[in-house]
Amino acid sequence: MERKNPLLVPELRELLAAEDHATLRDFCQETHPAAVAELIAALSHEEAWAVLRQAEPVLRAEIFSHLDEETQVEMVASLSRREAARLLADMAPDDRADLFKHLPEDRREAILPAMAHAEREDIRRLAAYQEGTAGAVMTSDYATLEPGMTASQAIERLRDVAPDRETIYYAYVIDEHRRLLGFVSLKDLIVARRDALVADIMHSEVVYARVDDDQEDAARTIRKYDLIALPVLDSADALVGIITHDDAIDIIIQEHTEDMEKFMAIAGAHEDAVYMRTGVWGHFKNRALWVVALAVLGLVSGFIVQSFEGLLLQFAVLAAFMPMLADTGGNTGSQSATLVVRALALREVGPRDILRILAKEVRVAMLLALLLGTIAFARVLVFGGGSSISDGVSLNTIGLAIAIALGLQVITSTLIGALLPLGAARMKWDPAVVASPALTTVVDITGLLIYFTTAKLLLGL
Amino acid sequence: MERKNPLLVPELRELLAAEDHATLRDFCQETHPAAVAELIAALSHEEAWAVLRQAEPVLRAEIFSHLDEETQVEMVASLSRREAARLLADMAPDDRADLFKHLPEDRREAILPAMAHAEREDIRRLAAYQEGTAGAVMTSDYATLEPGMTASQAIERLRDVAPDRETIYYAYVIDEHRRLLGFVSLKDLIVARRDALVADIMHSEVVYARVDDDQEDAARTIRKYDLIALPVLDSADALVGIITHDDAIDIIIQEHTEDMEKFMAIAGAHEDAVYMRTGVWGHFKNRALWVVALAVLGLVSGFIVQSFEGLLLQFAVLAAFMPMLADTGGNTGSQSATLVVRALALREVGPRDILRILAKEVRVAMLLALLLGTIAFARVLVFGGGSSISDGVSLNTIGLAIAIALGLQVITSTLIGALLPLGAARMKWDPAVVASPALTTVVDITGLLIYFTTAKLLLGL
Repeated sequence: MERKNPLLVPELRELLAAEDHATLRDFCQETHPAAVAELIAALSHEEAWAVLRQAEPVLRAEIFSHLDEETQVEMVASLSRREAARLLADMAPDDRADLFKHLPEDRREAILPAMAHAEREDIRRLAAYQEGTAGAVMTSDYATLEPGMTASQAIERLRDVAPDRETIYYAYVIDEHRRLLGFVSLKDLIVARRDALVADIMHSEVVYARVDDDQEDAARTIRKYDLIALPVLDSADALVGIITHDDAIDIIIQEHTEDMEKFMAIAGAHEDAVYMRTGVWGHFKNRALWVVALAVLGLVSGFIVQSFEGLLLQFAVLAAFMPMLADTGGNTGSQSATLVVRALALREVGPRDILRILAKEVRVAMLLALLLGTIAFARVLVFGGGSSISDGVSLNTIGLAIAIALGLQVITSTLIGALLPLGAARMKWDPAVVASPALTTVVDITGLLIYFTTAKLLLGL
Repeated sequence: MERKNPLLVPELRELLAAEDHATLRDFCQETHPAAVAELIAALSHEEAWAVLRQAEPVLRAEIFSHLDEETQVEMVASLSRREAARLLADMAPDDRADLFKHLPEDRREAILPAMAHAEREDIRRLAAYQEGTAGAVMTSDYATLEPGMTASQAIERLRDVAPDRETIYYAYVIDEHRRLLGFVSLKDLIVARRDALVADIMHSEVVYARVDDDQEDAARTIRKYDLIALPVLDSADALVGIITHDDAIDIIIQEHTEDMEKFMAIAGAHEDAVYMRTGVWGHFKNRALWVVALAVLGLVSGFIVQSFEGLLLQFAVLAAFMPMLADTGGNTGSQSATLVVRALALREVGPRDILRILAKEVRVAMLLALLLGTIAFARVLVFGGGSSISDGVSLNTIGLAIAIALGLQVITSTLIGALLPLGAARMKWDPAVVASPALTTVVDITGLLIYFTTAKLLLGL
């Protein structure tokens, strides 16, 4: 629906078998590189490379960049050293540095000497930035101008460099030390008088990122200012790269996926579209660590229940409310944790807002506690009659004990839900990691303590 | 850090008090509209408007568009009819239609007659598309070309229309019925020979969306093909709007926020940065519905426990493992649900892949079940001695019963976690809504049934 006439996989195989190189070349030329990549991803690596071989080298590298990382690494491993070096030379600097970081050591050492000096240095420089920083996602293919150029000279320059640049819609004005003086958009240049000076047209208030800034902050800046690209400066204020709008989307999706996985106690696999390709053993490893850690922590709840065994034997109805108490605590805690984690991620609040957040959460929690306590009380009165309870204790008292315990559980778990991410943020940890389900296990423990203690006090034991 | 010399809020107030209009105008002119909006959002609506009044009308509308929706609606309410009509006239069509949809009925009827016919029609048309569709997020400010133009004529045309267009970096080539023939980028035009025909330069394989496509699909298409803008066609194949890259980021963030909230049982508030501004009562309403619904569903677990009361009184050690059983079921279920929801969202799998997914999940679950069952068995043997158990039943048997129940619980909850989102997707519901914590409550119920039934059978009751 979104595209016309996509060539299908069986047809591609037929063309390969017939060695119809001309048609394959036309197909690569006329289809969007992302669409070609999607189709050849369904072929074997050998078949995919046989298709790519028909494309012009620059286009070949572009299509290749749209393949997922694992496929890229595997395909490069099967290429000759010369083919691999040529492919890497034609890739965009940021994609190339990314791929390079994921190649095995021996493959890297084999390919590097086969590349030109400038590209080798570029790879070394980009690959040196720490994963997750603006430096690690930026590209060095940006367009620069000098302040003394006229608008028409600037357009000429951009026309000349266009084929090798990630974007020519934003061009950066730099001095002889590569310090950023300002930027102009191609729109500014088109609209300006032909003899206007770049220095006069350029915007000198430039939004930028530093190489060691968090990639997510850079992506959020691009979003906030609706930018096509964000310049990245090193510690000497020199322009060293740009991050483009399409990378910003990828970063935001990647960070959201990671957050969601942390929320759901899954470790590992942060790449797109890997569910089916990840094997059973891989899935097991990604999930087992957290599940086992939480199950072991959950054994603590078992000890608490065991220590109140006498109480349970006397008032068996108490056991019936344990699951609801635990679930409700987990739900209310997750809600406040989710809201606080999001507010922290959007920089709406910081760890220093702790008192304002607690004040708000405590009031929300009291309303929820009142509502849920009432429901629990009604439930005990209506359906509690069948359970065995000791003589001398009325159903009212038991209902009250359970309602109060549930109310206290809602309030504590809401506060714990808000406090854990704030505490993590203050310790510079990722707030998402301490949210549910680690939270669920923690509020289970506090909940059981509250529950049995309240019951013991109110039932006069 | 990311910007130089931001004017601070107290300074803005001083300038307002001193009626220093020239400095305020310069400030609006020289600062990025998003940054001006961020600063004036901290002022009262009257103060904010007093600052905006100093900006040129088009710039004023642009800054205004960066304010959040609630503030926009409130500010428009306090403006005169003429001021409001002027402001809306200067806004981008998509932002304007969005705001318009959220104005109260009487305000809409007051403002519409004060606007020009063309703008009135544009608002009516854009506001008619259903929320969540490509039509509802597109803008009508795009640039078009005719196929017979030369590259230099096309550049002239883009230069002329530049001030009123969301982007001139992509221009769409249409015939006399506005049917989309192809598109050219400004880069293509700059690089082409001056007398080359647009029809010869343009890309005729165009990726597009339909007005009634899901906005998230449109955003994912923009991401997949690294587009600056995506054209939107109506049912007659006529070009009616474009969605730009910055809107794509907003859509993706909005959808992720909604997913996360559904995962955490929070209803309502899907806007950015609203935690602090939402009142206690608002937070309560957003959270209470789900928490109460789940608590009521949780009462079912209570009935199950009550019906096995005799068993619990005989083997009190069983109660000690209830929390761990519930939590582990919730965790493993959430894990598989999260992975399946994500694979569905990324279109990696569809509802028809159900058998392949179940085959994979069942094998992962069996490995997890083996591991966790072993841990539970060891726990019973080591620490179970203190609990009261009936004569004639060995600790080994109890340990085995608990381990088997836990293993079965892990397998069932993993499968339920995978099945619920697949079922929801087949029913065309949002898969996220049936994931945790609704899932947690469901697997609590199945878990307790499995647990007590297994115990009953193995302990020979």
